[in-house]
Order: sequence, then C-alpha cells, then structure tokens
Amino acid sequence: MSFLQQITIPPLDQTAMHLARIYNDSRLKPLGALGKLEDLAVQIAGITQAIMPRCPTKRMVVFAADNGVLQEGITPVPQAFTASQTVSMTRGLCGINVLCRHTGAELQVVDVGVAQDIQGEGLIHRKIAYGTRNMAQGPAMEEEELLAAMKVGYDMALQAQKDGITLLGVGEMGIGNTSTSSAVLAAFTGEDPERVTGRGAGIDDEGLAKKVAVIRRALEVNAAAMTDTLSILRCVGGLDIAAMTGCYIGSAQAGLPVVVDGFIAIVAALAAFRLFPEVRDYMIPSHVSQEPGYALAAEALGLMGPLNLDMRLGEGSGCPLMFQIIDSALALHAEMASLEEGSLQEDVLVDIR
Amino acid sequence: MSFLQQITIPPLDQTAMHLARIYNDSRLKPLGALGKLEDLAVQIAGITQAIMPRCPTKRMVVFAADNGVLQEGITPVPQAFTASQTVSMTRGLCGINVLCRHTGAELQVVDVGVAQDIQGEGLIHRKIAYGTRNMAQGPAMEEEELLAAMKVGYDMALQAQKDGITLLGVGEMGIGNTSTSSAVLAAFTGEDPERVTGRGAGIDDEGLAKKVAVIRRALEVNAAAMTDTLSILRCVGGLDIAAMTGCYIGSAQAGLPVVVDGFIAIVAALAAFRLFPEVRDYMIPSHVSQEPGYALAAEALGLMGPLNLDMRLGEGSGCPLMFQIIDSALALHAEMASLEEGSLQEDVLVDIR
Repeated sequence: MSFLQQITIPPLDQTAMHLARIYNDSRLKPLGALGKLEDLAVQIAGITQAIMPRCPTKRMVVFAADNGVLQEGITPVPQAFTASQTVSMTRGLCGINVLCRHTGAELQVVDVGVAQDIQGEGLIHRKIAYGTRNMAQGPAMEEEELLAAMKVGYDMALQAQKDGITLLGVGEMGIGNTSTSSAVLAAFTGEDPERVTGRGAGIDDEGLAKKVAVIRRALEVNAAAMTDTLSILRCVGGLDIAAMTGCYIGSAQAGLPVVVDGFIAIVAALAAFRLFPEVRDYMIPSHVSQEPGYALAAEALGLMGPLNLDMRLGEGSGCPLMFQIIDSALALHAEMASLEEGSLQEDVLVDIR
Repeated sequence: MSFLQQITIPPLDQTAMHLARIYNDSRLKPLGALGKLEDLAVQIAGITQAIMPRCPTKRMVVFAADNGVLQEGITPVPQAFTASQTVSMTRGLCGINVLCRHTGAELQVVDVGVAQDIQGEGLIHRKIAYGTRNMAQGPAMEEEELLAAMKVGYDMALQAQKDGITLLGVGEMGIGNTSTSSAVLAAFTGEDPERVTGRGAGIDDEGLAKKVAVIRRALEVNAAAMTDTLSILRCVGGLDIAAMTGCYIGSAQAGLPVVVDGFIAIVAALAAFRLFPEVRDYMIPSHVSQEPGYALAAEALGLMGPLNLDMRLGEGSGCPLMFQIIDSALALHAEMASLEEGSLQEDVLVDIR
C-alpha cells in the first residue's frame, strides 16, 4: 500500500482566518488596501492556527535529478551540468545560495536522481535512480520509482516541520526538466505541446521545434498508459517533479505554508493539487516564469504568482524573494496600529468606518 | 528664474553598465536567467558608477498635502484624515512605518500642504499652502505655489544624497489625490476621465460616477490654461504630486536611484519624465496599483512595476517592498560565483558558453 493512501490533509483553521481578517480590517488603513498582503496573513493564520502568525524559520529544499529524454538532443546543455550545479549548490556558489543567505533561509540539497555519483557538504543522498528513462521511447519511470521519489519529497517536508521550520520553499535542478514539465502539463490539460513549451535555459527556434516534437512523441508513445495523474507523472515526469509533488503534499499534511517557485514547480504543484485538492490551501505562489506554460499551469491550479521578474533560473530562486514579501505581509498585519490608535478625531473615525 | 532651468541630469555611466553586464553574464547561470534582477543591477551600476553596486542606506520621503477638490464631495473620507494620518506616520503607527522598520529604511514625513497646522516628532514643515484650491472651479495652484512645492521635493532628494542615502523611495498622503492624479493623467494622455479614474481608497458606483464627472469638469474649466506639463500640474495637480515630481528630478540630478510607488507616484514620475526625459533612467518601478490609470501611466512612462499585489494603500508602501527585491538583485550580482568557479568539468564549461 502506497504512503499516498494514508494522507490526511488538515483543513485550514476557519476561526483563526475569520479572526485574523477581523483584526486586519481594524488596522489603520482603508478596508482591503493591502490586497494580497492581507490575504497572505489570513491564509497563514489559517495554516498555523494563529491570529497573528509569523514565519521566523525558513528552509529551501532543492531536488536534483536527471532526465533520460536528454538522449533526444533537446538542449545544448550537457547532462553533466545537473551534477556539477548540484555540487556547486553544496559549495554555496549558486543563485539560490545567495538568496538563502540574504533572506536567512536554510538550504537543503537532495540528490533524488542525478545520473552520476556526487558528493558535497550536507548533500542529502536519496537517489532513486541514475536519472529516468527516455520518455520519448516509453515510460520514464517504474511505478515504484515514482512513489519512492514522491516519498522522498514528502519525508523532507515532514522533517522540516519536525525541525521547527515555519516556512518552506521547494526548488529543482535537472537539465531537461522544462521538457518533462511541459509534457506533464500537456497531458494534464490536453493543451497542444506547442502552447506549453518554451526555451528553457535558452534554445533557438530550431531547438524549440525539436523540443516540441520530442514532447509530442513522448505523449504519443505513452498515450495508452497515461490514465490519471500518477501515471502521467510516471510516464512523462521526472524524479525531481515527483519529489516536489510529494513535498507539497507533505507540507500540507504537516501544516506548513509552502512557497511554489516557477514553471517546473507549479506543474508539480498542479500534480499535487490533482491528487489532493486541499494542498492548494497551503501553497503560496511566487514568481511568474518566462516559460509560456506557467500561466496555463497557474490557471489550472488557480494560483498566480505576484512577482513579474522575467526569471528562468530554476533552483527555487523565486521562493526566497517571496519569503521577504511574506515577512513584510505578516509584519504589517501584526504591527500596524488600529484605527482607534491612529491620530484620529472621534468624528473622523465615525466617518471612515 | 525657476530652479528647473538649472537642472542638469547626468547620463548613466555606460562603461559601468557595460562592465556590469559582462560581469553578470559571467556568473554561474544561463545568460539572462535572472531577468529583471539582472537589469536592476546593471541600471544601478550605471547610476552609481560602480560595477558591483550596493544600496545599504535607504530612505522613504512621504509628502502630505490636501486637495481643494474635496469640496465637491468626491470621497466619503473627510479631509481631516490627511492631517491625522500624517501625524500617525510621525508616531510610527501606519503601514509605511512598519515596512520601513522591517526593511531598515529611514522615513521622512513632509507637510507640503496639509489643510491644518499639525505637529509630530520629526515632521518636516514645508507647507506651501493650506491645501490647494478646488480644481473643478479653476486652477488648483498659482505658478509660485507649484514651483515652490516642486522645489521642496527637489531639495529633499538633494539632502538625501548629502546624508549618504543610496536608495530613495517617494510616497504621499492626501485625501483626494487619486482624483488629482487621474485629472493630470487624462490631461497628459488625452484619455477620457472614465478610463483613468478608479475607486481610490474605496467608493461605490455612484461615487465613481461623481468622481469622473468632477474630473471632467476640472479638465473643461482649466482647458484653456493647460498648455504644457507645468500648467497641467498647476491647474489639476496637487502639492503632493508637485513635490513628488520635484523629488524624482532631484534624485536624478543627485545621482540617486529612486523607487516609484503606485498610481499617484507614477503620475508624478510621468510628469518628471515629460519635463526631463533623462530622469527615467534613475527610476525603479515597484508595485502595480489597483487603480485603472496605473497601467496607462506606466505605459506612457515606459516602466511597469514587477509586483502585482493588488495594493491601494498609498503612503509609498510599494517602495520598501521593492527595496528588498533590489537588495536581492544586487546580492545575486555581487555574490554568485563565476562559471569557472562552478563545479564544472572543463568540457561542460566549453559547451554551455
């Protein structure tokens, strides 16, 4: 029996949300004037069962894995870049390292499927396979591999909660994972691969046409086997996407707010939502990826990132940026004075309420 | 002779920008993968003439003023709210106070035209008039008042530079200033008032129709007198908008990067741009206001805010949020390792460049 059959996701605390909204509405500002910042405070109140929540301890978990579809020559970046960049993360050299240091967030790097053996300080070894198989020729994974990768992510979320973490972000590193994400999204939504496929780290028009063709072939080859969310993830997903999907589910089960990064992340978040719709209540979107599939996945999920920064780095890099916005939202909620405390004459107070 | 005739805005340092871009392109990431974060680092390199710029000292300047058009009954919020909220800012009670504390930014509150005498700790007294006249009956200001208010903002920017500030944000407080901003924007662009007018702090459909009608009347009454940017600001602008316009001009003259807040701020920024197009090089947009005029003003200015948070608080509240994004962008630029320092095999390095 899979661990997925034992998932129970607690509903958000409606009382805490109701009281947090009443409290927020009593602050020294026009009703609703802080928009999504107010909604964030209320959402996190519901998740944490606290009327004035704070998220002082933050962690990023980055899942690294390789994708067999690279055999099709869909990107000029060699597979070895997954391994080298994963090791670089353990050495503090990458963008996500800078952002984690800058925002006071911990970083955990997890090898869930890099195609070679790698070492690095603090690297968490949970390799399920040396990369996936080529989805353009058949299923990328066995069912056991898929579930094991999802369990890795799930366990990382539960561990974060045990470690006292109060805000989680999820990232990925894996050459070829915009291709797998586009394939998963096309299968989830029925969209043509052309509409959900972009240039990833950077390919030319010819490269893009080839990428679309390979994704189309992967969808055709696996069509009969793809009957539901899990079989789609298994046939055309990746070990990184699977681990991220499990991590979102684990976050919700553990009662942890979890920030969703860009394109690959939001496809994994959509997979988690299709399996357990309640997980969406625990998700906080961050940046809007340049990948054309982002908006479609965001629409299907019903969450749209507030940060338009034209980023396409991956690594979970949108999450620490959003951590700062979340901290600001919670500070505003907790620290703004009330209308009564404001320097208001009595008659003014009556008029503006 | 007006101080405006002595403005000389230094061009950005093209060499610093070129070298900053080369440096950024050599970092451990795909070319351009950090999108607007990269552009921010390069822009600030050009402003500060430093290849690896930092902005450690931040200041918000909030200009408070009243608007005579309130006589038309365009908002249920009484005029006294401008005074009380301005005093509340000096007492640390408002949203902008929380955000400044949270981001380590100084806050200066400037009375440039509040309709009553007010006191507060640290309040900067630069009152030009006890509010403007009613723009629906004639020009809101005399030319001397307009230029004096602009000079207040200009001086505040120059003072910030003398005080060692490295990043400036500009905000406002003034009941009725979405009406004046909409009128200025309509006059600048020729758009119908209906397209550029929104609900401000919150009015119903009837209130909105009345607000549009009043703005339309103000534009008709002053039509003959409005022949250029300055006369438009004088006839249908406000002392707060004028001071903000001067502050953007002063920031550029002083070589200071300056963050532009929401609707009222971007209209003032557009005014500064129409007077001195080079000031735009020094501006950094922040949040996208819920006001319908924001997008039109942003398009006319050629700058669009990256933060979609559905905010409509005013007070400059988008600026400290953007300070955090800017700090992150500059940290990424300065602290990411080079491609060579990355854990890359030689052959990989050759392939991805």
